[in-house]
Amino acid sequence: MDEDALKSLKIDKKRLMEDLHHTCQWGTGKRWGKAETETGMTRLALSDSDKQARDWFVKTTEDLGCTVTIDEMGNIFAVRPGLKNDRPPTFAGSHLDTQPTGGRYDGILGVHAGIEMLKVLNENWIETEYPVGVVNWTNEEGARFPMSMSSSGVWAGSIPLSTAHNLREVHPGTATMAEELSRIGYLGSVPASHEATPMAAHFELHIEQGPLLEMANKKVGVVTGVQAYKWLTINVKGRDTHTGTTDLKSRADALLAASKMILHSHRLATANNALASTGILNLKPGSTNTVPGDVSFSLDIRAPADATVARVLALVEQDFPKIAAGENLSGLNDGGTPSLPCTVSITEDFDSPATTFHASCIDAVTRAAHRVLGPEGKSLTMEMTSGAGHDSVYASKRCPTSMIFVPCREGMSHNPEEFCKEDDCAIGAEVLLHAVLRFDRMREVQRVSWKQEPYTL
Amino acid sequence: MDEDALKSLKIDKKRLMEDLHHTCQWGTGKRWGKAETETGMTRLALSDSDKQARDWFVKTTEDLGCTVTIDEMGNIFAVRPGLKNDRPPTFAGSHLDTQPTGGRYDGILGVHAGIEMLKVLNENWIETEYPVGVVNWTNEEGARFPMSMSSSGVWAGSIPLSTAHNLREVHPGTATMAEELSRIGYLGSVPASHEATPMAAHFELHIEQGPLLEMANKKVGVVTGVQAYKWLTINVKGRDTHTGTTDLKSRADALLAASKMILHSHRLATANNALASTGILNLKPGSTNTVPGDVSFSLDIRAPADATVARVLALVEQDFPKIAAGENLSGLNDGGTPSLPCTVSITEDFDSPATTFHASCIDAVTRAAHRVLGPEGKSLTMEMTSGAGHDSVYASKRCPTSMIFVPCREGMSHNPEEFCKEDDCAIGAEVLLHAVLRFDRMREVQRVSWKQEPYTL
Repeated sequence: MDEDALKSLKIDKKRLMEDLHHTCQWGTGKRWGKAETETGMTRLALSDSDKQARDWFVKTTEDLGCTVTIDEMGNIFAVRPGLKNDRPPTFAGSHLDTQPTGGRYDGILGVHAGIEMLKVLNENWIETEYPVGVVNWTNEEGARFPMSMSSSGVWAGSIPLSTAHNLREVHPGTATMAEELSRIGYLGSVPASHEATPMAAHFELHIEQGPLLEMANKKVGVVTGVQAYKWLTINVKGRDTHTGTTDLKSRADALLAASKMILHSHRLATANNALASTGILNLKPGSTNTVPGDVSFSLDIRAPADATVARVLALVEQDFPKIAAGENLSGLNDGGTPSLPCTVSITEDFDSPATTFHASCIDAVTRAAHRVLGPEGKSLTMEMTSGAGHDSVYASKRCPTSMIFVPCREGMSHNPEEFCKEDDCAIGAEVLLHAVLRFDRMREVQRVSWKQEPYTL
Repeated sequence: MDEDALKSLKIDKKRLMEDLHHTCQWGTGKRWGKAETETGMTRLALSDSDKQARDWFVKTTEDLGCTVTIDEMGNIFAVRPGLKNDRPPTFAGSHLDTQPTGGRYDGILGVHAGIEMLKVLNENWIETEYPVGVVNWTNEEGARFPMSMSSSGVWAGSIPLSTAHNLREVHPGTATMAEELSRIGYLGSVPASHEATPMAAHFELHIEQGPLLEMANKKVGVVTGVQAYKWLTINVKGRDTHTGTTDLKSRADALLAASKMILHSHRLATANNALASTGILNLKPGSTNTVPGDVSFSLDIRAPADATVARVLALVEQDFPKIAAGENLSGLNDGGTPSLPCTVSITEDFDSPATTFHASCIDAVTRAAHRVLGPEGKSLTMEMTSGAGHDSVYASKRCPTSMIFVPCREGMSHNPEEFCKEDDCAIGAEVLLHAVLRFDRMREVQRVSWKQEPYTL
């Protein structure tokens, strides 16, 4: 195949979508439409349905001629040989696990686009310069085992193996990640490490999960980096008292204080052009006629710049104890009854600094997008920062990385109704294919410039 | 025993407290002090520990010569014969079940004071005019089976038997009340009804569960009635979206809306001299990086007058949909980002109108308190309204009723550290004894005036 033929390779949209919906038979979630495929997904990491999807991934990639490696975190690497097999592969990757009320595209589309890439390479008898791989990362969502991107994190050396193995699933289950890896047969023997399984580059196709592409009428987002975020746990302590017999001024109502903090965090985010979100809230003792004395909630703070996240965190650390103590910040106490003080403790659970992707990968995605989209390519493409964390964040610590975003309906994600048009899925997969091929062709030429710490191509 | 001797009868404080702490071996809760008895209680209705306390109650009262009746709701009536046994007994009653993080006095003190009364009558060979009884009501707390005072409610004919029998225990259990009654051997065959087990009167000793007696330096509260309350469930629907990729204006954040409603309910309560409290809050899907699209919370509204509760409810029904829709009530939205609307639904789960106790019972308690407290009796006694519901609310629908309150430390209740001094427990028990004896002596004299609908003495 000559270079021009190579550059006009197409993916098979029908096959891509059939494959994707085929694997959504495992862990099918809430129905939202009449068509067979109009449901969400409930495929928690290392569940029985995740095992079924993984088994399909292994069998399919092996049938396509790949060598499959499973590491100690259950990450699955499927590698198609190239001409120079002593060198690390160029990878496309994402994840097959979902949120408890997730959709069919987040993560799943990226893995299927990688498999479609392998099929296109095979049916066109294409020999790449270097090996090409597809990776399915374990527990990207962090929904079941509460640390997102835990397994690419171990691979990158950022999270200790024992920390990830000992992660215990969220209430009401009690199993650890190591136990569940073992139970479903995906506790591999290969070390989960960028040294044991090196990558020349990592490309990831993903739905945007936000409204910007749709609002701007663009087809492809070239992702130049990922915004910074911190995850906090806030614990408010008051006093359990009877709702009927305790007048308002004699209360130390931990939930009322927490409600003020949640509202205040929203105001702080607004003022600082950041995001603040509470997705989990638990209280004790949990009885209609008892004022709760103990409330814990999560706080997720995000912004494109590390400094903004740090500023919002500093304001939270400054203001939440005042709110707990009963100070009237921003009129929160106006019209209320002064009451007994609560106390608050703030724990930082997770810190993900802003990530900048690799110029060469960004370039490969940009050129691939322009080619796939044709003459109007430039006007249908935009550079953007990812709001969400992805396995590409950890991958980028150990190899050149970039991502491809495609629009999803109303920017909705982590929701059963998450939806990406077939045409947009296909565009994304085709951009992924061409970005990987371009990188494969160019990495020898550009080798010197890419060989920057900590990468070893 | 002559009338003067009768009037100076004493209870045995040491025995009362030993008995009370003896039964707290079943369902012992969180420790808060060093002394053996300085723990809370976790004795949920119809649990194994509740069964042990019940077994003790039955054996103890039978050993004291009582006839014990168990009805279809597991209510236990222990009756000591009097001179005229064809007429209904005068009862002292309360409950042995506790909140999940409750204390040693709420309910338990009232039952033990009744048993102490039986012991004093026995050791002094006193023959009452009419029979005298002690009742242990089932599931007063409504903490395990979510309807408080469910079994006195059935007895009074206010709650259908099938409703109570089919109450399902709160998460994570799944058993119904009928199943648990049967399992622990307390599904009696006698109908749970004021007709099958009539009462001439119902007196209940209880800790105040609020700070008013302590603050006013009083020893006894003569309870003239119970404030009105309504229990609501509020459900807020927004949209599950990713916390990192959804800008603030593209969110329909159900928890942010719920936080505003909780704060607003506190302001409405303040403005209307009422109480508003949220003790339960659940959200879905419950993931740090997903904005919750579904939040449910309880709202408990109380005030001495029915009209006040109705007014606060009307304001909640008027304002919560506006808050959900994004209107800026009382500056809640100041400094925030306008976003997509949520919706809200409001369900009334439970309505307990204001209760007025019976003048003759109030009089019996007042006179008993003055006698027990001696020359300073009048200055150490105050009339008050109960903030909490009690089995006496339902009892009062079918027989003359009043309650005796004693102070508890810092007004704290529904908390392991709930505490009532031994002297105060003893004063309360002695007032209960004398109120019952006075009623027993007077009921014949005052019979005509008491024979008002719906009572049949």
